[in-house]
Amino acid sequence: MPAWERHLQDHRQEYVAQLLDLLRIPSISALPEHAGDVQRAAEWVAQRLTAAGLEGARAMSTGGHPVVYGEWLHAPGKPTVLIYGHFDVQPVDPLALWTTPPFEPTIRDGRVYARGASDDKGNLLLSIIAVEALLQTADALPVNVKYLIEGQEEIGSPQLPAFVAAHKELLACDVILNADSGQLSETEPTLLVGLRGVCAMEIDVYGARTDLHSGSFGGTVANPLHALAELLASLHAPDGRITVDGFYDDVVTFGPEERAQIAAVPFDEAAFKSQVGVEELFGEPGYSPLERIWIRPTLEINGMWGGFTGEGTKTVLPQEAHAKISCRLVPNQDPARIQQLLQAHIAKHVPHGVKVVVRPGMALAYPYEVPLDHPGNIAARAVLAELYGREPYYGRMGGSVPVCETFLRRLGAYTIGFGFGLLDEQVHAPDEFFRLASFERGQVAFAKLLEKLGEEKPV
Amino acid sequence: MPAWERHLQDHRQEYVAQLLDLLRIPSISALPEHAGDVQRAAEWVAQRLTAAGLEGARAMSTGGHPVVYGEWLHAPGKPTVLIYGHFDVQPVDPLALWTTPPFEPTIRDGRVYARGASDDKGNLLLSIIAVEALLQTADALPVNVKYLIEGQEEIGSPQLPAFVAAHKELLACDVILNADSGQLSETEPTLLVGLRGVCAMEIDVYGARTDLHSGSFGGTVANPLHALAELLASLHAPDGRITVDGFYDDVVTFGPEERAQIAAVPFDEAAFKSQVGVEELFGEPGYSPLERIWIRPTLEINGMWGGFTGEGTKTVLPQEAHAKISCRLVPNQDPARIQQLLQAHIAKHVPHGVKVVVRPGMALAYPYEVPLDHPGNIAARAVLAELYGREPYYGRMGGSVPVCETFLRRLGAYTIGFGFGLLDEQVHAPDEFFRLASFERGQVAFAKLLEKLGEEKPV
Repeated sequence: MPAWERHLQDHRQEYVAQLLDLLRIPSISALPEHAGDVQRAAEWVAQRLTAAGLEGARAMSTGGHPVVYGEWLHAPGKPTVLIYGHFDVQPVDPLALWTTPPFEPTIRDGRVYARGASDDKGNLLLSIIAVEALLQTADALPVNVKYLIEGQEEIGSPQLPAFVAAHKELLACDVILNADSGQLSETEPTLLVGLRGVCAMEIDVYGARTDLHSGSFGGTVANPLHALAELLASLHAPDGRITVDGFYDDVVTFGPEERAQIAAVPFDEAAFKSQVGVEELFGEPGYSPLERIWIRPTLEINGMWGGFTGEGTKTVLPQEAHAKISCRLVPNQDPARIQQLLQAHIAKHVPHGVKVVVRPGMALAYPYEVPLDHPGNIAARAVLAELYGREPYYGRMGGSVPVCETFLRRLGAYTIGFGFGLLDEQVHAPDEFFRLASFERGQVAFAKLLEKLGEEKPV
Repeated sequence: MPAWERHLQDHRQEYVAQLLDLLRIPSISALPEHAGDVQRAAEWVAQRLTAAGLEGARAMSTGGHPVVYGEWLHAPGKPTVLIYGHFDVQPVDPLALWTTPPFEPTIRDGRVYARGASDDKGNLLLSIIAVEALLQTADALPVNVKYLIEGQEEIGSPQLPAFVAAHKELLACDVILNADSGQLSETEPTLLVGLRGVCAMEIDVYGARTDLHSGSFGGTVANPLHALAELLASLHAPDGRITVDGFYDDVVTFGPEERAQIAAVPFDEAAFKSQVGVEELFGEPGYSPLERIWIRPTLEINGMWGGFTGEGTKTVLPQEAHAKISCRLVPNQDPARIQQLLQAHIAKHVPHGVKVVVRPGMALAYPYEVPLDHPGNIAARAVLAELYGREPYYGRMGGSVPVCETFLRRLGAYTIGFGFGLLDEQVHAPDEFFRLASFERGQVAFAKLLEKLGEEKPV
């Protein structure tokens, strides 16, 4: 057993305690009242990088939520690896559905339950721990390491592209490791070779100047809730296909061979249904569930509200109605173009008697793919094969990590997904958790990957 | 000038102050946390009846919100008049749109602004003041008077029918005067000869067991918000017609003569549009706006909610979605049958992959009509003609006063609408107000009507 691995074992309890500390910070980037907590999480991470032995670790301002940078660059002739992750988290509502409070991390059955446990604080911290173990036992790293850890991933990283563009030299690297990633299961390693993109918007529907009595006015004035329902219903066919003109135009068609590769990835439909708690799956016809998540775009209503929502009855004809919608996009869809198509669809379908305002959201990310034969992919493949005792699958992720496409465009480097989250970990939902076993296995995996990358010439 | 009229003038300031007192009680019947306030309003009204000279005035329990009863029965051989009104009010949200707080009544430009000012505390109180003025100046009333004032009108009077059925002797009367009514304008008196009925329900749509990440799961699981939008959109054709099978089956068709009577009622479409703040009216094709409000049924979504509704973006695939809907009904629609038709429609249109639960609401009222030649109508007509200097129109009301049908069925007496609310008074909406001029004119009108009814034989 290498010295770094013994170090990891010796400090196991301490590292878990550190994870709990980080999880106690309610760094919800979507809610302005938590901006101070996001900043606090940034400072926690910067201090943790310094403690691990990284140099120049600091929170840096972006104009929005901060990023944290740190580096260790004393491996001349070796590749430079940029490790990416995020310390911001999703909102926690509906709060009532949490078994224990989201920011009071609790360990039950080898899992730590807290908002951000899996996405992404657990995955982020394990990479820092791996670097620390290497540095403290060998006084050196096998590669040059830079860290870029952000605080605005959950709101679509609005200021990050400009930050990356403005700091190309600081962030220059050969390959990026993305700790905001996952594995198929505890026994099935996966290399993520694709991410979906995203775009989001809010739809506001306005009717009368004020709420009206549905008796005195009902029948004469358009109801914004009806109009919104009609508008939202027009976005899909009843079979689940998106009906926005041109929406599928740029979607890359996967050939039989690529679809066979996806079909090879284990997917237990019964277990999946039982996990999410539905009796039947539903989605675009003609595609398997994994294809629908990985290589087909979606359009979801994320929220919808208007009128009287309290207990009891109020016979009101409300003055306005609202919805938040977002699309998951696949190669080669352009999020800006999709937003335009959606706006055109909505403009064409505005129901009678209401005004509709569309507010494109901040979340905007291109879909992303990494070549299967990229050297970083090959190294990661070897490490996962050794650790899990089997070759990893080539998987994709239905979610979006907007920064991958930014890194490729601005730094000219590909991003390798190297995280240990699993599908059932209630990410973005109540009772999010992370397995402590994944936390520890991930530390070993990261250290091995840095060693493996150190054997390479700069890629 | 009769003595009672001078009395009204002499006590004008005092009566306005009493109205403000009553308006300060937030007696919102729809919200359980205000149950104590509804009770408090009942006690206020009972004390006010006693002060006015009524006997046996008291709050009586119903199993839900209380009613208040009081009587003066010392006019043998004269008709017995039951005066009805309500002291409960609608909820106040959206609170932010009120110019001054809803339960801090404020007088501006001769109007008192507060929740319940017009509906129905102002109208209710003015009738009590009229009775007091008669009693204090003549020591007697021209008719026998009973009061039944309720605290659950705004939630559809769930316990009132049983209360009325159980107290038929106590409430026995020749005619009922309904203070929860209105006039067409300050110069156009109106006799209300019809009310719409109502039924209401909540629709709950359930998908996955928890909220899901729209990236990891989007495309495989039905989105309850989409399903709800689809379901709600299915209730109407784009032109506004209700598409529920059988919905219009029992609707009484009005002949050319009756439609001409409605067409004679002044309706300034430009002023109406400007009042509600819309550029175009919208409703069932083939009917005038007044016909749509008075003699055609409607189906409105009163509220709709689900998913993430906070600031910012949350790419969630929510687990549930909800809507409250209600229908306004016209002769001869049966609210129970309409609920069944709606349930059948929803059951037939349940979208794929979700579960739908329909919860019929408590609001349930039959539509109601009073014969034009009813003696109470004739007396009211004479009083209004004298006070306004012109014959009143025969109008209807788009709203519902469920108790009218209950009175007819249980007490065998018709209800004459005799209130002074006007259409623009923001009833059920922010900045509800009542004109002090209406408050005072209504006092005179009520006293005159009681005198006029005293000239009649028992009807």
